[in-house]
Amino acid sequence: MRVTFLGTGAAGGVPLFGCTCRACERARHDPALVRRPCSALIESGHTRILLDAGLTDLHERFRPGELNAIVLTHFHPDHVQGLFHLRWGAGTRMPVYGPPDSAGCADLYKHPGILEFHALAKFEAVSIGELTLTPLPLIHSKVTFGYAIESINASRFAYLTDTLGLPPRTETFLTDWQPHGLALDCTYPPQREPKSHNDWNTALTIIDKVRPQHAWLTHISHTFDTWLLNTGESSPRIDVAMDGDRVNLAASPESPYSC
Amino acid sequence: MRVTFLGTGAAGGVPLFGCTCRACERARHDPALVRRPCSALIESGHTRILLDAGLTDLHERFRPGELNAIVLTHFHPDHVQGLFHLRWGAGTRMPVYGPPDSAGCADLYKHPGILEFHALAKFEAVSIGELTLTPLPLIHSKVTFGYAIESINASRFAYLTDTLGLPPRTETFLTDWQPHGLALDCTYPPQREPKSHNDWNTALTIIDKVRPQHAWLTHISHTFDTWLLNTGESSPRIDVAMDGDRVNLAASPESPYSC
Repeated sequence: MRVTFLGTGAAGGVPLFGCTCRACERARHDPALVRRPCSALIESGHTRILLDAGLTDLHERFRPGELNAIVLTHFHPDHVQGLFHLRWGAGTRMPVYGPPDSAGCADLYKHPGILEFHALAKFEAVSIGELTLTPLPLIHSKVTFGYAIESINASRFAYLTDTLGLPPRTETFLTDWQPHGLALDCTYPPQREPKSHNDWNTALTIIDKVRPQHAWLTHISHTFDTWLLNTGESSPRIDVAMDGDRVNLAASPESPYSC
Repeated sequence: MRVTFLGTGAAGGVPLFGCTCRACERARHDPALVRRPCSALIESGHTRILLDAGLTDLHERFRPGELNAIVLTHFHPDHVQGLFHLRWGAGTRMPVYGPPDSAGCADLYKHPGILEFHALAKFEAVSIGELTLTPLPLIHSKVTFGYAIESINASRFAYLTDTLGLPPRTETFLTDWQPHGLALDCTYPPQREPKSHNDWNTALTIIDKVRPQHAWLTHISHTFDTWLLNTGESSPRIDVAMDGDRVNLAASPESPYSC
């Protein structure tokens, strides 16, 4: 299974419009440090799934028929806004899976265009090509799913944004499932009272419980980037993902992944 | 007054994702023929107003403080989607004027960030820097305003998207007001029964009634572009606007504008 982090930014991304903090100024001068809307491409054999659709240039990044499906974590604009344009396309229809959110976002349900929305149910696995995804409820301000994703050669990857902690049943599922790789929301540096998203401490606690072979932090805000720059903080077997990072996950316990 | 057509496309733009019509294929090979979300920059002296916010790279096109205000015609996603990102900016607040639409779009009102929304009232003029804008009700599937825009040196420009025909009071206002320039929705080639937007025939009828010194058609779909390519149709003192077109409007009746 190959995972490409297409975007690793929190809402507003890095650099943030008008912000002059250290991380934002640095990203303005080095395009490799820009963080776009949080999303990932999952590939296995001929199967390609896009996790979240917040990038607004999806119609230019992908050719018609190139994606088997788009799978949404939730319907906040920074995770679906690329659909506003894509939907008006011609020809091939695009399956879009997501949590059962009757409101959706703006008029996406009213005018779906080429999009075919399908609501998933928590813990009920769905197979898309060579990949099987199990929706895992998360804790956020809108109904949100993470996904436990397994390829036909048994490599296992969990993608958990946006969340603040984990519901007990999701945590139990993941500790039993033992993912080779875990991508996890870590929006903020240590906070006194985190809201809607993990901070560094909450993320470490989750990783310590789930015990993946490797973890990548994503959905990063400029304040977390600045904190990392100032403290040099790091932790073994945890990477802070960057836009464009590509990971090959394998089921072997000796060599779970290569970048 | 200087008018720059930043985007001249209908929803979906040109080229449309997955479409192989003549206009879409042509735009894929010549970036000058691409049509982005319909919007315009109006400048007079030191005043800069952005009409509609459908371009998703607003945070890169404009520096903080560079715009006096954003003025919205309505809250359909292709006219406001650039705000989803811009709102999370830091520092300078951004006034956003628009029609009195209590729904807005998605969660823009709930989480405005740096945006300050102000509802305008029909026919009640508002002054922003050196420009005065009078909101004109249009006929669309959501509450929508066009704008009669006058500069301090008395050049007059009307911007009318999205609409199908004109309400009688708006038409009377415009025929009395005698704009030097008119930008008008012309989404479709001649239709048996146009819906939500003008076709070529409706647009010509409006121009014939309002009698501006010059008119530009905008909010163009790929079907209209293809029809123009196939028929070579044109009309005196009417241009089909292209993305990036820039017009200097003057009050002089002899030379109302230069490109």
